[in-house]
Amino acid sequence: MRYLITGISGFVGQHLARHLLEQGAEVHGTCVGDCAAIEGVEVLEADLLDPAALARVVEGSAPDVVVHLGGLSHVGESWQRMAEHFQVNVLGTENLLAAARGRRVVLASSAEVYGRVPEAEQPIREEHPLAPRTPYALTKAAAERLALGAGAVVVRSFNVVGPGQAPQFALPTFTAQLAAIERGQQEPVLQVGNLGARRDFVHVADAVAGYRLAAEQGEAGGVYNLATGVDHSVREVLEKLIAVSGLSVEVRQDSRRVRPVDVALLCGDATRLRGLGWQPRYDLDAALEDLWRSR
Amino acid sequence: MRYLITGISGFVGQHLARHLLEQGAEVHGTCVGDCAAIEGVEVLEADLLDPAALARVVEGSAPDVVVHLGGLSHVGESWQRMAEHFQVNVLGTENLLAAARGRRVVLASSAEVYGRVPEAEQPIREEHPLAPRTPYALTKAAAERLALGAGAVVVRSFNVVGPGQAPQFALPTFTAQLAAIERGQQEPVLQVGNLGARRDFVHVADAVAGYRLAAEQGEAGGVYNLATGVDHSVREVLEKLIAVSGLSVEVRQDSRRVRPVDVALLCGDATRLRGLGWQPRYDLDAALEDLWRSR
Repeated sequence: MRYLITGISGFVGQHLARHLLEQGAEVHGTCVGDCAAIEGVEVLEADLLDPAALARVVEGSAPDVVVHLGGLSHVGESWQRMAEHFQVNVLGTENLLAAARGRRVVLASSAEVYGRVPEAEQPIREEHPLAPRTPYALTKAAAERLALGAGAVVVRSFNVVGPGQAPQFALPTFTAQLAAIERGQQEPVLQVGNLGARRDFVHVADAVAGYRLAAEQGEAGGVYNLATGVDHSVREVLEKLIAVSGLSVEVRQDSRRVRPVDVALLCGDATRLRGLGWQPRYDLDAALEDLWRSR
Repeated sequence: MRYLITGISGFVGQHLARHLLEQGAEVHGTCVGDCAAIEGVEVLEADLLDPAALARVVEGSAPDVVVHLGGLSHVGESWQRMAEHFQVNVLGTENLLAAARGRRVVLASSAEVYGRVPEAEQPIREEHPLAPRTPYALTKAAAERLALGAGAVVVRSFNVVGPGQAPQFALPTFTAQLAAIERGQQEPVLQVGNLGARRDFVHVADAVAGYRLAAEQGEAGGVYNLATGVDHSVREVLEKLIAVSGLSVEVRQDSRRVRPVDVALLCGDATRLRGLGWQPRYDLDAALEDLWRSR
């Protein structure tokens, strides 16, 4: 199989590229700005807002399937940079779909599109109504509609964790702080934001296996949750990570890091993806150990 | 011509229905909740989130053209009710487009999709990049992409004014307060929010003529600004309205009404719509006189 991955320099992109290479696939990728080289992969710079560049990349790489991971993915920033999120996530997806017309496309979406779901209706199934509550979620929900209209496969990813995630996300921040404490560069105080939210954490190695199955076997116009069905509070995750680090630290809530979290719980039902043969192989402890090892 | 108007009970919907009847058209309409009867029009209750109801209405009325005005349209409320705005404005549009497949559709969009445009690039042309800065604008921009993908005509309406607008908008609020002052039910103090924003005001009678032309002659997949090309500050509009009322009032800024306005100016270039023969017949003074007369 020949793959084209947009946003290949991102967290999931790099893991997916390596996973596909191990599976014997040919991998091409696009990125913007800081384009990391990935051994064995042709990485081309192509802005999602440049339809001609996308068309050239798709024609040049002639992929069997395009996995569209590219986009802006930070919920907090989407409040301040709404226009940019719309452009990259919605118009960028539209451009990508146009460039890849007639080819198989997988869109990486997010559990955020579900919004606030009553606990009794969790783990959430794909049929659950979409009720985005953040600009980021709005752009992903809109991108989904365009993708499904074009016959793409949509993967709704819950919280992917593992080595290589950008530092503005919670777990990488915790890890970086713990590593600084270990090196004696920070007093043994961990600054944190809200810890009460409960999320469904997927090890990035399982996540990329899920994307590959969706790419190979997903139903055109179908939606697949990428989730374990198990939720953990951020507090619990933090405590586990501190235990993994073996450090003794004080946890201090930093008011500047506290954003209103109005979605208390997001936990997904991945029965559909499991139906394609997906089976998560790593639990949260394994993900946290890998995260800590990669510090 | 046989028309189906969604959201016919709304401000523009009622005016458009009467305008089309005067032009000899047959008019059907949908609404939800408070459905006003309109003489000569078949008004049916149909929720935009109910695909089966929409399909029944479209099949039953067999319109030559559907003008899709239905939706949530208050920018301020969209911050608090984001999920609902997504559902009604985006999924509702998708449902309507599916129900009307194979028919001509006009989508009512909004100048808000342009976001913050440098003054030197105003009046804004349709080719200007979209940069929504509010949840409402995000939902309209997303709905546009779905509509254009389905070959619909998109009308980007600037600020429509005239009798019958919902009371949460600025001008109806000013008018209602002035009327209360005139009746002696309110002390002669007008409570207002931000007055600095400059907008392009279109008389509703001109607006509905524009919708009709777009419906009859608009290019499929085309976008048309509905704008005069002239801007006025809200302060100027308020002063004109007070002058029209003949009342002597104090204007007082009410902090609860002050929302951050980060789009200072929105003024549109309607050369494309004028190319279909559209010509605004009423200026702002006429709109304000009509508004005051209808108090």
